[in-house]
Amino acid sequence: MFGSMSNAPEKQNNKLWQKAGVATRPEVTAYMISKNLEADNALLPYDVLGSKAHAQMLAGVGLLTDEEANNIVKTLDEALVAHASGAFILQQENEDVHTEIEKFLVDRLGDVGKKVHVGRSRNDQVLTAMRLYTLDHLKQARALALNTAEALLNFAKQYEFIPMPGFTHMQHAMPSSVGQWAGCFVESLLNDCVALDAAINLNNQSPLGSAAGFGTAMPLDREMTAEKLGFAKVQVNALYCQLSRGKFEAFTIHALSQVMLTLGKLANDLVIFCSQEFSFFKVDPSLTTGSSIMPQKRNLDIMEVLRANVTVIQSLQMQCQTVGMNLISGYNKDLKVTKKPLMDAFDITQSSLEIVQLLLTGLQPNEEKLLAAFDDVEIYAADIANDMVKGGVPFRDAYRKVGEALKTLEKQDPVANIKAKTHLGSTGNLALDRYGAQIKMLRKG
Amino acid sequence: MFGSMSNAPEKQNNKLWQKAGVATRPEVTAYMISKNLEADNALLPYDVLGSKAHAQMLAGVGLLTDEEANNIVKTLDEALVAHASGAFILQQENEDVHTEIEKFLVDRLGDVGKKVHVGRSRNDQVLTAMRLYTLDHLKQARALALNTAEALLNFAKQYEFIPMPGFTHMQHAMPSSVGQWAGCFVESLLNDCVALDAAINLNNQSPLGSAAGFGTAMPLDREMTAEKLGFAKVQVNALYCQLSRGKFEAFTIHALSQVMLTLGKLANDLVIFCSQEFSFFKVDPSLTTGSSIMPQKRNLDIMEVLRANVTVIQSLQMQCQTVGMNLISGYNKDLKVTKKPLMDAFDITQSSLEIVQLLLTGLQPNEEKLLAAFDDVEIYAADIANDMVKGGVPFRDAYRKVGEALKTLEKQDPVANIKAKTHLGSTGNLALDRYGAQIKMLRKG
Amino acid sequence: MFGSMSNAPEKQNNKLWQKAGVATRPEVTAYMISKNLEADNALLPYDVLGSKAHAQMLAGVGLLTDEEANNIVKTLDEALVAHASGAFILQQENEDVHTEIEKFLVDRLGDVGKKVHVGRSRNDQVLTAMRLYTLDHLKQARALALNTAEALLNFAKQYEFIPMPGFTHMQHAMPSSVGQWAGCFVESLLNDCVALDAAINLNNQSPLGSAAGFGTAMPLDREMTAEKLGFAKVQVNALYCQLSRGKFEAFTIHALSQVMLTLGKLANDLVIFCSQEFSFFKVDPSLTTGSSIMPQKRNLDIMEVLRANVTVIQSLQMQCQTVGMNLISGYNKDLKVTKKPLMDAFDITQSSLEIVQLLLTGLQPNEEKLLAAFDDVEIYAADIANDMVKGGVPFRDAYRKVGEALKTLEKQDPVANIKAKTHLGSTGNLALDRYGAQIKMLRKG
Amino acid sequence: MFGSMSNAPEKQNNKLWQKAGVATRPEVTAYMISKNLEADNALLPYDVLGSKAHAQMLAGVGLLTDEEANNIVKTLDEALVAHASGAFILQQENEDVHTEIEKFLVDRLGDVGKKVHVGRSRNDQVLTAMRLYTLDHLKQARALALNTAEALLNFAKQYEFIPMPGFTHMQHAMPSSVGQWAGCFVESLLNDCVALDAAINLNNQSPLGSAAGFGTAMPLDREMTAEKLGFAKVQVNALYCQLSRGKFEAFTIHALSQVMLTLGKLANDLVIFCSQEFSFFKVDPSLTTGSSIMPQKRNLDIMEVLRANVTVIQSLQMQCQTVGMNLISGYNKDLKVTKKPLMDAFDITQSSLEIVQLLLTGLQPNEEKLLAAFDDVEIYAADIANDMVKGGVPFRDAYRKVGEALKTLEKQDPVANIKAKTHLGSTGNLALDRYGAQIKMLRKG
Repeated sequence: MFGSMSNAPEKQNNKLWQKAGVATRPEVTAYMISKNLEADNALLPYDVLGSKAHAQMLAGVGLLTDEEANNIVKTLDEALVAHASGAFILQQENEDVHTEIEKFLVDRLGDVGKKVHVGRSRNDQVLTAMRLYTLDHLKQARALALNTAEALLNFAKQYEFIPMPGFTHMQHAMPSSVGQWAGCFVESLLNDCVALDAAINLNNQSPLGSAAGFGTAMPLDREMTAEKLGFAKVQVNALYCQLSRGKFEAFTIHALSQVMLTLGKLANDLVIFCSQEFSFFKVDPSLTTGSSIMPQKRNLDIMEVLRANVTVIQSLQMQCQTVGMNLISGYNKDLKVTKKPLMDAFDITQSSLEIVQLLLTGLQPNEEKLLAAFDDVEIYAADIANDMVKGGVPFRDAYRKVGEALKTLEKQDPVANIKAKTHLGSTGNLALDRYGAQIKMLRKG
Repeated sequence: MFGSMSNAPEKQNNKLWQKAGVATRPEVTAYMISKNLEADNALLPYDVLGSKAHAQMLAGVGLLTDEEANNIVKTLDEALVAHASGAFILQQENEDVHTEIEKFLVDRLGDVGKKVHVGRSRNDQVLTAMRLYTLDHLKQARALALNTAEALLNFAKQYEFIPMPGFTHMQHAMPSSVGQWAGCFVESLLNDCVALDAAINLNNQSPLGSAAGFGTAMPLDREMTAEKLGFAKVQVNALYCQLSRGKFEAFTIHALSQVMLTLGKLANDLVIFCSQEFSFFKVDPSLTTGSSIMPQKRNLDIMEVLRANVTVIQSLQMQCQTVGMNLISGYNKDLKVTKKPLMDAFDITQSSLEIVQLLLTGLQPNEEKLLAAFDDVEIYAADIANDMVKGGVPFRDAYRKVGEALKTLEKQDPVANIKAKTHLGSTGNLALDRYGAQIKMLRKG
Repeated sequence: MFGSMSNAPEKQNNKLWQKAGVATRPEVTAYMISKNLEADNALLPYDVLGSKAHAQMLAGVGLLTDEEANNIVKTLDEALVAHASGAFILQQENEDVHTEIEKFLVDRLGDVGKKVHVGRSRNDQVLTAMRLYTLDHLKQARALALNTAEALLNFAKQYEFIPMPGFTHMQHAMPSSVGQWAGCFVESLLNDCVALDAAINLNNQSPLGSAAGFGTAMPLDREMTAEKLGFAKVQVNALYCQLSRGKFEAFTIHALSQVMLTLGKLANDLVIFCSQEFSFFKVDPSLTTGSSIMPQKRNLDIMEVLRANVTVIQSLQMQCQTVGMNLISGYNKDLKVTKKPLMDAFDITQSSLEIVQLLLTGLQPNEEKLLAAFDDVEIYAADIANDMVKGGVPFRDAYRKVGEALKTLEKQDPVANIKAKTHLGSTGNLALDRYGAQIKMLRKG
Repeated sequence: MFGSMSNAPEKQNNKLWQKAGVATRPEVTAYMISKNLEADNALLPYDVLGSKAHAQMLAGVGLLTDEEANNIVKTLDEALVAHASGAFILQQENEDVHTEIEKFLVDRLGDVGKKVHVGRSRNDQVLTAMRLYTLDHLKQARALALNTAEALLNFAKQYEFIPMPGFTHMQHAMPSSVGQWAGCFVESLLNDCVALDAAINLNNQSPLGSAAGFGTAMPLDREMTAEKLGFAKVQVNALYCQLSRGKFEAFTIHALSQVMLTLGKLANDLVIFCSQEFSFFKVDPSLTTGSSIMPQKRNLDIMEVLRANVTVIQSLQMQCQTVGMNLISGYNKDLKVTKKPLMDAFDITQSSLEIVQLLLTGLQPNEEKLLAAFDDVEIYAADIANDMVKGGVPFRDAYRKVGEALKTLEKQDPVANIKAKTHLGSTGNLALDRYGAQIKMLRKG
């Protein structure tokens, strides 16, 4: 790793904490920075927002003049524009976006630029930027989840009464339907919003002003910055702000993983249902890929990759959740590794929601094969036992009688069968319209 | 494992699903039952509740006479009493509590007892029992968390202005206080209630009537059973009820793990702070244990075990969350292993909350040692730089100047220092009363 | 948890470390002991072995007289016999087997019994007992793995040339065979022995004499005890003995998990292959279970439970591997929780190996269904392209041509096809006899 | 994610499996490729090696002329050179290195280039490349581990008899030494080589020729390619080659994690030991970093990051180990995600070994502080009890007596104390030279 590096101390010294006469070894910096540059860069616009609110607050409490604050805010807005155009991005020698932005200010404003760090630390800066980033992306993910739920709902409605075997233990169990199968994922995604909303709720508190975890002697107005940044409240205890680092990230990834678990089940079902043996669905070839050796193959790679991503997100969650274990309270550098996993988790979840939507545009039930699965009449055994119960036979006795006559059960019409089940949640009464109403409501707030 | 077992088929055949002429090998049963008997037995009273509601509903829709339903309900109440007294518990040969309870009914009511299984499956029975168990225990855990938060709050108030070094990177960073340290865990526990409430919210829907995951042709009134059991709503899609198995358990354990993560940080701090080198706290000897070889030892074992339990609960969570991966939709036997982890997670969390409360009764700051930690004046460096800023020096310049004069910084009064920090969340303004109000509010609902 | 407990200090005081005048609170003990009593009891015979070797060594270096040592050894042998008959087991009030055994000695030998603890600590005692337990069970697991490999090998030989579709992406890929499928698990299990042997290798070093992790001033002869106990060598550094606690357990569970991963893949394949859609195998009904609501069901529950156990063992591994993270070197009580996971891991692995052997006695390929899967000629596409290559067409061109003519490919004889593939490891040349030879060799050493 | 993408099918069609008339949607490709390009590119030289051996074998069995094979080998050598100079790297539109290399050949050799894919699939190609990559890096990691062990050994020798408190439960337990502390990590690293060697052993078998997991009808000589590539043997069963994907990667990462666990304990000790309260060690400032707000801070960030990396590698391991769970035998696309984790694991382990070596160059015991820790005479309690035992008092009685007289124990000379412990592995007999001999032996093979 260090083979090609000179042992000379670093020339460029832009670090906020660098002391005169002590040069940090380049290997030390190299070991710490590793691969996180990109993740840090994604935080830049959110750190700018935090810095703007902080500068305005400093003016509000008299630590900056209004003119100073205005200049800082204006320059930060220029930084945002420059970042959006790609002209202003994190440079490795500046270590992190906090330093990069301060440098941007100092280059343009001189001493005034140096003043924006009054009353804060990189510790609360990064916490604030991460919170803003997280809230922003949680809302995006939630909107995508609702879109995907709606696409699944439309699919469920379109094929509501196409019969499909229901499985337990991967064995034919009882008649089910494409509507019931697809509807199941709709309800699951809607419930996953409980988790996303809890994560939004948790992240919706401002750590700005907690400084290095102990506050400062500056007369900061933390409620002002919280309000300016749109947070619901202040995260009060300064040390607790630090304690929540890593924990909130893990909580957020866990919420995202709920969505991924839902999609993962869908993906796995589709891989199984698209096998030659099942052939329950047809997928548009433009959504499949091939093999380098077997000319006939059309693989549902995207669903396999999605399935793998469920594993990935779970390991990201575990990583963030365990990294802070058994560390003394207060910031520890270990927590630095929680940034990238969170960002990866958002990327995985959002792209997976989109790919499922895309897939649904090219997915069709294979009605012929689905109906053929009902040729084996054993799938009606429980229904027939239930009919006997309605005729007065105790269920346990009906169960035994049907079990002894499996080979001679009468064939039924599968569509009539699934329509005849009318209690809430069964194939004849899926109450799909409830979901539509819920989606509408969830979109509102 | 099977060495001492006879190869003869089982004599006793109490299984609901046993067929004539086919005897299941005893090794098969042995492999499946394993260690779960105790976990299953804990479900018994909740399954009785579910059965009562189901029987009443069956009468409501005309599938039982009122007399039959009344007899069943009365007999189930007897079962509850017998279970509470220890006279009625799960026997291994009856496989599970569902069979055990049905047998209890049939022994007493004959054919009527057999009728209670109409319109349901063990699949929705166990789901219902697990939900009721989970909600019951989540509420217990939440109440305990609030009690522990209150105990910590009282501790924070009692020692609010005792100075304590604040650490970052396990190095002295800035002045902090016992109040800030203890308050941090109060706020953390209160935030953990967000997770517990999300888990309560998620579990608060009735799966009863979903049968084996596809509903039945019986005219079940699922809203009636949901209401009788006190659920907020029906979990509609029958297949989704199955899909949520394992997932809800994992979600619940994750919520509990939030509490454990908070307690684990507290525990780890205390182990560190009670080391000879730190000696920040004194613990009553009755709360410590000794060594078999070193006569002087007084170890804080309970905090170490608590710390280990954080690991345990995380692995239980992972277990429940991954066990359903890549399984076809609908019930799969794999999910059976999610019961015990959930119960263990409750046991761990509840006993850990209690042990922390106990510990607080014998925990005292060691003021002398805490103050001695302020002899090294470097801890005031950031404060002094901030003072220079108030005098007009840009922060970056103040920072460099203080850094060069570390050895000649002036000693301060630590108590005055921590009281002088007055913005929200810093040592002089911990706003502890807010927590008291929050606890009161959370206890209400 | 503590509701029913008296707050009075414990009456019985058998703890090795209990001090006069300081009574440990019963809740403290209750929190620590939790559910580990059974796990501790399983260590008893191994701790006796360690104690015997230690006593003999003490005599060897003059710290006991020969008569004292002989009496101790004789009494320990009686303890072993009493334990085997169930007459001597760990009592909760004696905290752990080390105390229990010392009490056994003191009850019978008076002061002499107290002398056996000279020059050791419970820390090296439990390490030694765990190592002996682990080595013993690793050897059992390895022998069972080889037996299961042999049973699979016989299955592979019996059905070597029955064609079976080979899958990639769960799509028909190329012709395979039952022999290739079963043989794959044989080779996997044999490779898993690499992991088991590494675990044996690692555990095969004696920690006895490391005391509490720092050695003692007693002139212990650690090489003598290592030899008496059959260890390959001494684990030298006393502190390292402590460092390896938890780590060796995790390493061992990881080795066992390799076996479980192999069995889990087999189990999952069988669940899929026994679905109605596949029907590639038939299972004797005595190895299946039923449903409480669907009279026709015959579920392969044991393979589902096995599959779940793969998840369980992985979470046990993670638990042991992470519990020691970020703890200061030297013993910490946290490590206590590593005992039960290790024992559970052995139980899971050994019973799973046995259940697979049992299953193989009732498993049969369904030749008719397997052959029917070859009706879709696309499965030969790669083979046909290869034939064109032999005729001089570049592979890429052959691939494209076959891809365009999928519907008109000629039907082949599947048995001839799989026999015609003769390079090592392909269906016509599985080299099954190599495995037999390897099993023989591995059994030897 | 797809917002900025055109919905038009891809123009460039370099995919080995692309069919006429079916264009894969760009979103499908985008979702699958994700971030793995860099990981794939790292495989390029190893895939070239595999291709060379395959081409030579094809000539050996008559499927290529010698001239064709020679041209292919020569061109592949050119590819290696071009890759090393950066002139030839994986382009996203070519999907993977296998396609990229084949294109390189076809561009230069025309039809002959197309022939190299005869008798193989990307499935065995990537397996082979991964094995070669893994073996190469395992050997590098092993060499680095031995170097680091040697550096630690030198440190242990240099400070062998500097006393240091030994801790249990983070409490002073008994006298230890810097030599014992450092030696403990030496022995641990040497034992970790057991794991690395097992991983080398496992990976040292050639999957080349297993094609897509079922072999081919080509008369491949798999033993020839295994030998040419330096593998110890052929991995026989073609389907098993696929089964081992993901599993071998996880096994390898687990082996690396053993090294990381050792380093992580060292790192955590150092963070604790460098706290103001402990101050057991001094670190050269050039190895520390500072704070943006606290001018006095000198943090041991590299050890904190190392500690975090232990968590990262464990989550990478879990990811690879669980991704294949419950997937049907044979290749599934899910396994694609195992490449990057393996590479990241090597990167983490190798850089961490190097950073520890670097740290040791600037690490010094703080003798004054270490000796001061012995002022509290309780640390000698066990030793004094042992002395009484030598005088004839049973240990349990000595233990109680010392426990009652803790305050009046006599002060000892700590250096004399640690030197007086002379049994193997204790402070006076660390047998450090054994490690030197072991390192030498392990370096040989």
